[in-house]
Amino acid sequence: MTVSTNRPRIGIIGTGAIGGFYGVMLARAGFDVHFLLRSEFSAVAENGLRIDSAVHGQLHLNPVQAYASAEDLPPCDWLLVGAKATANAELAPLIAKVAAPGARVLLLQNGLGVEEQLRPLLPDSLHLLGGLCFICVHRTGPGAVVHQALGSVNLGYHSGPLFDDEGARQALVEEGAALFRLAGIESRAMANLEQARWQKLVWNVPYNGLSVLLRASTTPLMSDASSRELVQALMAEVVQGAQACGHVLPAGYAEHLFKVTEKMPDYWPSMYHDFIHRRALELEAIYVRPLAAALEAGCDLPKIRALYQALDFIDVHNR
Amino acid sequence: MTVSTNRPRIGIIGTGAIGGFYGVMLARAGFDVHFLLRSEFSAVAENGLRIDSAVHGQLHLNPVQAYASAEDLPPCDWLLVGAKATANAELAPLIAKVAAPGARVLLLQNGLGVEEQLRPLLPDSLHLLGGLCFICVHRTGPGAVVHQALGSVNLGYHSGPLFDDEGARQALVEEGAALFRLAGIESRAMANLEQARWQKLVWNVPYNGLSVLLRASTTPLMSDASSRELVQALMAEVVQGAQACGHVLPAGYAEHLFKVTEKMPDYWPSMYHDFIHRRALELEAIYVRPLAAALEAGCDLPKIRALYQALDFIDVHNR
Repeated sequence: MTVSTNRPRIGIIGTGAIGGFYGVMLARAGFDVHFLLRSEFSAVAENGLRIDSAVHGQLHLNPVQAYASAEDLPPCDWLLVGAKATANAELAPLIAKVAAPGARVLLLQNGLGVEEQLRPLLPDSLHLLGGLCFICVHRTGPGAVVHQALGSVNLGYHSGPLFDDEGARQALVEEGAALFRLAGIESRAMANLEQARWQKLVWNVPYNGLSVLLRASTTPLMSDASSRELVQALMAEVVQGAQACGHVLPAGYAEHLFKVTEKMPDYWPSMYHDFIHRRALELEAIYVRPLAAALEAGCDLPKIRALYQALDFIDVHNR
Repeated sequence: MTVSTNRPRIGIIGTGAIGGFYGVMLARAGFDVHFLLRSEFSAVAENGLRIDSAVHGQLHLNPVQAYASAEDLPPCDWLLVGAKATANAELAPLIAKVAAPGARVLLLQNGLGVEEQLRPLLPDSLHLLGGLCFICVHRTGPGAVVHQALGSVNLGYHSGPLFDDEGARQALVEEGAALFRLAGIESRAMANLEQARWQKLVWNVPYNGLSVLLRASTTPLMSDASSRELVQALMAEVVQGAQACGHVLPAGYAEHLFKVTEKMPDYWPSMYHDFIHRRALELEAIYVRPLAAALEAGCDLPKIRALYQALDFIDVHNR
């Protein structure tokens, strides 16, 4: 392995709210962080990145090691991909280009099957990991991110040279979690990425979808008896789907996330931002694949299916 | 019985789209029809009632036997109630006031339990019937109704002096159906009102709710693969609920309504009109009571429940 483990070089692919927040936190902790940008390049190169965080205060990274083209990035040991899952296919060649030999590619995305989609497009020598971010952040303008609450990241190994070596594989995941912890971010290495993804779906399936369907943020959703029941019923179906697929989630996990959301500041999930900006909704990763996986395991999830069908109608008519 | 069966006097309570259309059709056929109005009284008294019908052409009833107060109506043999089911409790004293002895009260309303709600508020001597209208009509202004398609009415006996005499009861329902047929309207006497109401729910549950949830009329709902599947799934749950409650609907009934809707002109169901005018949605009759009846019979209807919970959230935040 040629990756430098002392001071790994980190590349951020997709500097939206997620990439911007974690990138700035890592740079602030002394890591060598490089940002690949598209439409926001000039604004960030000129004014830097600003995080208005309710937890960490006002963070301003300036100058930023910002690039408009993947050709210009130095080879990176860790690549954090915070772009929409819908963009993975077009990102693959860029990732391959900026990856150092033996690099770790970490997909900070929600839903199921995002690594499966990207894997065949990447060189076999790269490690592919998934990360589930429990965080309330949103982009407010070019290079400007508001961080409202939370921030933890759960990591898991998906595929790559260490797939058959459980010990080494897990050590690499721990190495990733350690990076985040050094930057002041709670982070856990998960033994099973697929299970971690199902756990995160317990939050994403109800709140992302209902924010679009009901044009409502978390506070009104948590203040109305009918939407509370609907959230709980959808969470219960995700837990059921996970179980059918062989992932027994921690006891009381749905209730835990329900209570966490009650205490959160009012939050508009990312799918709502995609909706109002008439971007494609991440329905494939958050609804279609979990429904298909559960169904293949003999488990129908009727309320999630109905929610998906309604969202698909909305998505098609929204673009 | 003092009801005149030769030329019964008909009172229309609630002259919206439904009351206006059937009232004008009956008046046009030579019946003695009296209209009780509220906000539209002056407009109708002055300009009459206009039906712009794709089936029957331009109909204009003028002068109209219109009244602003129940005190002024002559005693009626038949009372057609086309008001929202949500208004039944306040209408009961008016109905009792204008009813001739032995009068027949016909509720032209959707959903379950609308007669049960009204019955205890009416004198025992009155016959209470329910009517299910398969019709595309909407009000466009004071005394103005657009009739786009269909028009049939299925009638059933609910309660009253003839409850224990099946033959006489059914004869009375046939008498009602004959009134409509004399006015050129398809009408059938149903042996079982509850079953007729469940049959009508096969249409109302998907289309009324989805029109509000997805802000969509029938043509887009029938043109998208996801919403088509959702409509069919909701229809299947209604059929299942009916069956659990002891009503085996005719084979292929849901498919029949699905195809009828495909051929209909583009139509906004009445619940959508209630939604955009910020009026209470008829959720109790169309969702809450069918869900409760099915659940009591041991049958959960998960997609209808999810749809109801979403609509309830929308309704609460819409008023």
